[in-house]
Amino acid sequence: MFEPRRIKHCRVCGQLVEYRIPADDNRERAVCPACGEIHYENPINVVGTVPVWGEQVLLCRRNIEPRYGLWTLPAGFLELGETVAAGAQRETDEEAGAHFEMQDLFTIYNVVRAGQVHFFYRARLHDTEFNPGPETIEARLFREDEVPWEQVAFRTVRETLRRYFEDRRQGSFSLHVGDIG
Amino acid sequence: MFEPRRIKHCRVCGQLVEYRIPADDNRERAVCPACGEIHYENPINVVGTVPVWGEQVLLCRRNIEPRYGLWTLPAGFLELGETVAAGAQRETDEEAGAHFEMQDLFTIYNVVRAGQVHFFYRARLHDTEFNPGPETIEARLFREDEVPWEQVAFRTVRETLRRYFEDRRQGSFSLHVGDIG
Repeated sequence: MFEPRRIKHCRVCGQLVEYRIPADDNRERAVCPACGEIHYENPINVVGTVPVWGEQVLLCRRNIEPRYGLWTLPAGFLELGETVAAGAQRETDEEAGAHFEMQDLFTIYNVVRAGQVHFFYRARLHDTEFNPGPETIEARLFREDEVPWEQVAFRTVRETLRRYFEDRRQGSFSLHVGDIG
Repeated sequence: MFEPRRIKHCRVCGQLVEYRIPADDNRERAVCPACGEIHYENPINVVGTVPVWGEQVLLCRRNIEPRYGLWTLPAGFLELGETVAAGAQRETDEEAGAHFEMQDLFTIYNVVRAGQVHFFYRARLHDTEFNPGPETIEARLFREDEVPWEQVAFRTVRETLRRYFEDRRQGSFSLHVGDIG
């Protein structure tokens, strides 16, 4: 079961909050005893792409924690003011500096223990010039038999890559929805 | 553009926050000048179902604001500790008290101005006994020609219902992803 991001003080008035079940609710929330503000905590969305060039996919080697030095698909937190697809596109720009076009939504994975939902779109690379941002050590293309599976940073990335190569062998792509335990 | 949920005080230490762009970031966040905590704000997920009985769908009349008295599909905020499907199932339990089984994910709508992403699963009702909770005035079944379109509470619900009846006429259901402007 996921440990919520602990809130100590009220965001409205700064008082210490209490954890209790508000009226008309059925779970514990951080409630402000001074001003009554209820602080809801909800899962957040991680959005990214599977950028493809022929038989190869683009992976980025992480220049940040967690999982520094391991390989990932370009992805990050969905921000206010953007759609899931726009967020996935922005993260691919920021982390890989690739030229590409977005394709269909490909995987959705619930990562309940992290309080996250991960979304990956397929994307088609226009060329092989990458200009990775500060969060990336290196961006490069891998054929299926070259993917450093033991060095992949996240399970949702590993599952998404596995599904991608499977679907491609079968000749058609469909949406995959799953849970990462 | 979405107006973020304004944070005034640091959740860790209670000091007044400042809005500025942290180092290694590219957008304004609520940053605590005392303890350094960065308060990220992200879109939240709304999850629900299209419960179906033969040619009819189940709608709930809202007993809460916003849109008090209008009709909706059972839906609500995804909570920490649950998957998107589990949240949709829980909301259907809470709001309609229906007996049903979950089917496939059917629609995903970005509601950027509200800072939300909405997900609806199809669900098959086992019977027509409903036991709506306190958030619902009344739960009842509607054929397509009976749906009170002008009294539907949310655009994502209206779009999901419209897609549902369209797909059923065509004899097959697929995932629909879209943006609500």
